[in-house]
Amino acid sequence: MFHDALEEANRRARARLAHALPKTGPLAEPMAYAVEGGKGLRGFLVIEGASLFDVSPDRSSYAAAAIEAVHASSLVHDDLPCMDDDDLRRGRPTVHVKWDEATGVLVGVALQFLAFELVGDPAVGSGDIRAELARTLGHGAGGFGMVMGQSLDLAAEVAPNPLTLDEIIALQAGKTGALFEWSAFAGAILGEADREPLRQYGAALGQAFQIADDILDIEGDAETVGKAVQKDKDAGKATFVSLLGMDGARKRAHMLVDNACDVLAPFGQKADNLREAARFAISRKN
Amino acid sequence: MFHDALEEANRRARARLAHALPKTGPLAEPMAYAVEGGKGLRGFLVIEGASLFDVSPDRSSYAAAAIEAVHASSLVHDDLPCMDDDDLRRGRPTVHVKWDEATGVLVGVALQFLAFELVGDPAVGSGDIRAELARTLGHGAGGFGMVMGQSLDLAAEVAPNPLTLDEIIALQAGKTGALFEWSAFAGAILGEADREPLRQYGAALGQAFQIADDILDIEGDAETVGKAVQKDKDAGKATFVSLLGMDGARKRAHMLVDNACDVLAPFGQKADNLREAARFAISRKN
Repeated sequence: MFHDALEEANRRARARLAHALPKTGPLAEPMAYAVEGGKGLRGFLVIEGASLFDVSPDRSSYAAAAIEAVHASSLVHDDLPCMDDDDLRRGRPTVHVKWDEATGVLVGVALQFLAFELVGDPAVGSGDIRAELARTLGHGAGGFGMVMGQSLDLAAEVAPNPLTLDEIIALQAGKTGALFEWSAFAGAILGEADREPLRQYGAALGQAFQIADDILDIEGDAETVGKAVQKDKDAGKATFVSLLGMDGARKRAHMLVDNACDVLAPFGQKADNLREAARFAISRKN
Repeated sequence: MFHDALEEANRRARARLAHALPKTGPLAEPMAYAVEGGKGLRGFLVIEGASLFDVSPDRSSYAAAAIEAVHASSLVHDDLPCMDDDDLRRGRPTVHVKWDEATGVLVGVALQFLAFELVGDPAVGSGDIRAELARTLGHGAGGFGMVMGQSLDLAAEVAPNPLTLDEIIALQAGKTGALFEWSAFAGAILGEADREPLRQYGAALGQAFQIADDILDIEGDAETVGKAVQKDKDAGKATFVSLLGMDGARKRAHMLVDNACDVLAPFGQKADNLREAARFAISRKN
């Protein structure tokens, strides 16, 4: 059920995104490349969240495509030599390796702009809905929150002491959590409903997802994970695993998934796919 | 008159932008630095364009701040070593020189997100107005058009032949023209009026502004211009001046300014500041 729904949502978000991509010019090919692959978990959250309020995937797929564009943009920028300097992403050469750094910078910028064109599309809903999607995607709950988290991450690399647990939680609430939060509550904006339960779900899911990433960085192999592993350990960076130990990190991830499922109680069975998504976030192998 | 109006609009746009900037975290200082200086011509166009439809600066200053944020973002990214590799901007060290490249990438991304938070602010107007500002700022007429122009510019550097006049016009219509177009017609969106006259004004102004830049690159000195000069000539790049000669380029700039003023005829004296802005775009020394 969940895996079919994830695949179907991913197909819809990617079709919408592909339609919006430029078909000519020097960025056409690298932009299409940058959005290929990936599970589409964030776009799935948008479409499933919207379905709780009976918003059709036809309408919600624009916001789903938008968040996948922002996510892909952030990965291309993160992989740049001046950032994490990664050669491998989703099992393939990163954009700046396959093309060059300038292309990497511009592809990221272009995908970010494209996201706002998508949420502003008249087919998405009323002006108030579209404007609120754009505002929140720009704001701390969305992209801006993400880039603040990224900047804390970079600052931590040159800080004299490793981060504390509270600092890691704050950093990851931005870096990973902000886009998950937005993905989850975008459905409530589309449905003109209270966004707080879905925001809490997204925040808990985001942190659980990050803990799973930290665990994969230790236990996974690069081929399965699709990107370089053991990077945090080699860099001496504080992570949930380094601070809590492997068992403590697993326990915290499970607790967060329970919390995420709890806030969905009012939605009953309709939210089963979102509950499974939370469990999937910590059981995945890549 | 015009210079007072420009200064006043710049003050308003910058105050709005300063208010929206983060006050803490590693990006607070470099973001504030990146938006300092500059004439604020694009923000002025928004506020003056909006005033044609009796939209108050209180409302239009959000969109003015947004386009100045996008413009500042594009400058920070353009100056990166992998792009134009400039050390000097507005007479001061560029962001990646004063901080580092990663900060340059993130500051640009953060300013871009901030722009959409600004146009999505409920104080801007109805949902339809805010959503349309966000959509067009994302779209080809705004940021996306700009980044397409930047990518054509980079592609031209490695092309076997210099660009033709038609190709330069197309490139600059994106790279410089797109933000000028958006700045001009944002006022019509705010005033719920036909945006075509102001779009034409912005497109003509943008090209005239670029021709003036090409002339300054030849005739100006770095201290007055505030950035490195003679770069295009040294790089053997085709420009309006290399293609039309100095006299031909000046003539074309004056023709474009006349065109820009002509399309403002229906607005009478109310558009005098916009006419002076067009003349200023080609008479400025920096």
